Amino acid sequence: MRVSVRGRPSNFRTVTFDSDRNAVLLIEQRLLPHEFKIVAARTFRETAAAIRDMIVRGAGAIGATAAYGLAQGARAFRGTDLAKFSRHVEIACETLRAARPTAVDPVNAMNQVRLTMRAGQTVEEQQALALAEAEEFANEDVRHCQDIGRHGAKLIRHGSNVLTHCNAGWLAFVDVGSATAPMYAAQAQGKKFHVYCDETRPRCQGATLTAWELAQQKISHQIIADNAAGHLMQHGKVDLVIVGSDRTLGRTGEVANKIGTYTKAVLAKRHGIPFYVAIPLSTIDWNLKSGSDIPIEERHESEVLGAWGVTESPNSKVQSPRSGRTRNTRRSSVVLLTKEAHATRSYIRVANPGSRAFNPGFDVTPPDLITGIITPAGIFKPEELWSNRAKLTS
Amino acid sequence: MRVSVRGRPSNFRTVTFDSDRNAVLLIEQRLLPHEFKIVAARTFRETAAAIRDMIVRGAGAIGATAAYGLAQGARAFRGTDLAKFSRHVEIACETLRAARPTAVDPVNAMNQVRLTMRAGQTVEEQQALALAEAEEFANEDVRHCQDIGRHGAKLIRHGSNVLTHCNAGWLAFVDVGSATAPMYAAQAQGKKFHVYCDETRPRCQGATLTAWELAQQKISHQIIADNAAGHLMQHGKVDLVIVGSDRTLGRTGEVANKIGTYTKAVLAKRHGIPFYVAIPLSTIDWNLKSGSDIPIEERHESEVLGAWGVTESPNSKVQSPRSGRTRNTRRSSVVLLTKEAHATRSYIRVANPGSRAFNPGFDVTPPDLITGIITPAGIFKPEELWSNRAKLTS
Repeated sequence: MRVSVRGRPSNFRTVTFDSDRNAVLLIEQRLLPHEFKIVAARTFRETAAAIRDMIVRGAGAIGATAAYGLAQGARAFRGTDLAKFSRHVEIACETLRAARPTAVDPVNAMNQVRLTMRAGQTVEEQQALALAEAEEFANEDVRHCQDIGRHGAKLIRHGSNVLTHCNAGWLAFVDVGSATAPMYAAQAQGKKFHVYCDETRPRCQGATLTAWELAQQKISHQIIADNAAGHLMQHGKVDLVIVGSDRTLGRTGEVANKIGTYTKAVLAKRHGIPFYVAIPLSTIDWNLKSGSDIPIEERHESEVLGAWGVTESPNSKVQSPRSGRTRNTRRSSVVLLTKEAHATRSYIRVANPGSRAFNPGFDVTPPDLITGIITPAGIFKPEELWSNRAKLTS
Repeated sequence: MRVSVRGRPSNFRTVTFDSDRNAVLLIEQRLLPHEFKIVAARTFRETAAAIRDMIVRGAGAIGATAAYGLAQGARAFRGTDLAKFSRHVEIACETLRAARPTAVDPVNAMNQVRLTMRAGQTVEEQQALALAEAEEFANEDVRHCQDIGRHGAKLIRHGSNVLTHCNAGWLAFVDVGSATAPMYAAQAQGKKFHVYCDETRPRCQGATLTAWELAQQKISHQIIADNAAGHLMQHGKVDLVIVGSDRTLGRTGEVANKIGTYTKAVLAKRHGIPFYVAIPLSTIDWNLKSGSDIPIEERHESEVLGAWGVTESPNSKVQSPRSGRTRNTRRSSVVLLTKEAHATRSYIRVANPGSRAFNPGFDVTPPDLITGIITPAGIFKPEELWSNRAKLTS
């Protein structure tokens, strides 16, 4: 999607691959929204570190990063001994998997790459197949998000006011995003609409990442305190809610997503406002039988007790990268940086010193509050997922 | 209520009067929760500045502060000429009123003081009556809050989990508070219970002021992101919600309160959790016919786009005042400070630079979501206020 660097809009993906330098190129998401920087991970170990250190986050994005990282590792092998090569690939795979041990997307992505590699007869052939399959994995992620956008765009009318929660945007995928996909598609169709971004405490992904995306894309938007959504709905200022999901139960239609999603769904129900969840197929869990079986991560209380930000003036613009050279790749103009990324944000303690916090990271929204689930294969009612599981398993 | 200063618990009121020094003593609320300090306003103009600059806030607290400020102004007059004295008192009254022009409590409080003063035949008598009436106004504020506590305490059971929003605590009154009054009374009855404090973005009065109060009072509590309340209710972790109100309509039972209150009421209704509003009689508006007539203040967007806090370590304790001497008054041990208060908090920008925010300060909760209104005169259903208006007008 579009990012303005030094005032010039260019297209970027969250993760791309530079085959000349055998490097995985990543948007340094920890610096957003205050600084935009692309970092190059030059070895599979650096790529694993980028996943571990949250330079890249989001299911689709870390899946593609791991796929590229595995191809990167395979391509770094020198020699023709297939047995040695295979052991080397195993090490790369295990290193990348261990970078985010609970995530399922990197594992699925790397399995897909390894399966394709088997068709190669030589190290060189397998190396080429690994990269081709990683590219295919990334492109498929983009196509799926575009499909979500195509189906979801019809929900957004000219003049609509759309509420979204957290960041299910292109930064969480290779491109386009899930909850944002209908917005980007509607914009491409020439529709004018307005987006309210819940700031999404405690980590504020709405105020930081989603607002940054929408600003880059020049979509009209305002950030609101999570507390304000009910008041807006009461006053007819929200026509539609679209959120993403970390896990959707195919058997029950229950949706696990960032804490606060359930609250927005309850409010939308009271006001008769359509509430949609946009998801890639990989986030559908066909096994779990009940939302109460979804483990809810309890996160560190410091997130609730304070906030991260910068002390710069409230009206400053997105900074352009301070160093680096511009380079054309197949698809986009990418700024390559050699300097280490450095965090400019600082933490402040807001809450009473000595008081503790309780910080559940996710909640589960039951199907009776969900109008529809927007998938790459179309829009389904939550209770229709199971009977359509043939269409919904890629 | 209790505050620990240098490790020793003492009793404080939000506002008191030092008759020897003719000074209004105020807790410097802008420094809370990171620093506890009492400041002395030595003239009625300093007292007006303290109201204007938010050293003191909350309906009950600024009412009593204005009453004391008027007595302070009257007592500063030297001479016996009643006409000159009366003009001097008028100037003090107008100065104090102009410090918070939209607030009704300072005006009501000062009218009460001036009415009582009329019984005095000399300047000296009127000065004495002014102080006596200001003290009476403050004491009545405390008694009313204690009455709210007495009625509301029965709602809190041993082992209850209580949710509250924003700060309707003793810092907003002379003492005890409204939403907190039932908690303090239940604690005095020996009940053990737990309080979840909504952090209450964007100004975080829950995370700062309410958490500070509960910590001082040694009431078990945890701060939660406003987003987490729905999840807690879903999991049976909230037995009761108690909030305050800025304005309650006597004709309709609608309640205006801090933004986010409505959301909590909608959630409580879905889960069958009792939702109570605790109010002093002065906040009942008997004139307005509809909640839609209540003007909703739109506050500065910087509140949503960032946060105020300190860079100190997350686990540091409440600081004790750095200078000052301890002095016994009639009721409590008060630390008098000569140094100017200085804000230790700093602002950080959290949100995407360039993105804007929408920041309504209040919302209106309809009566169908309110289980009861806890008043000094008892607990009423919202629709019962009007028929009980004789009991509810002091």
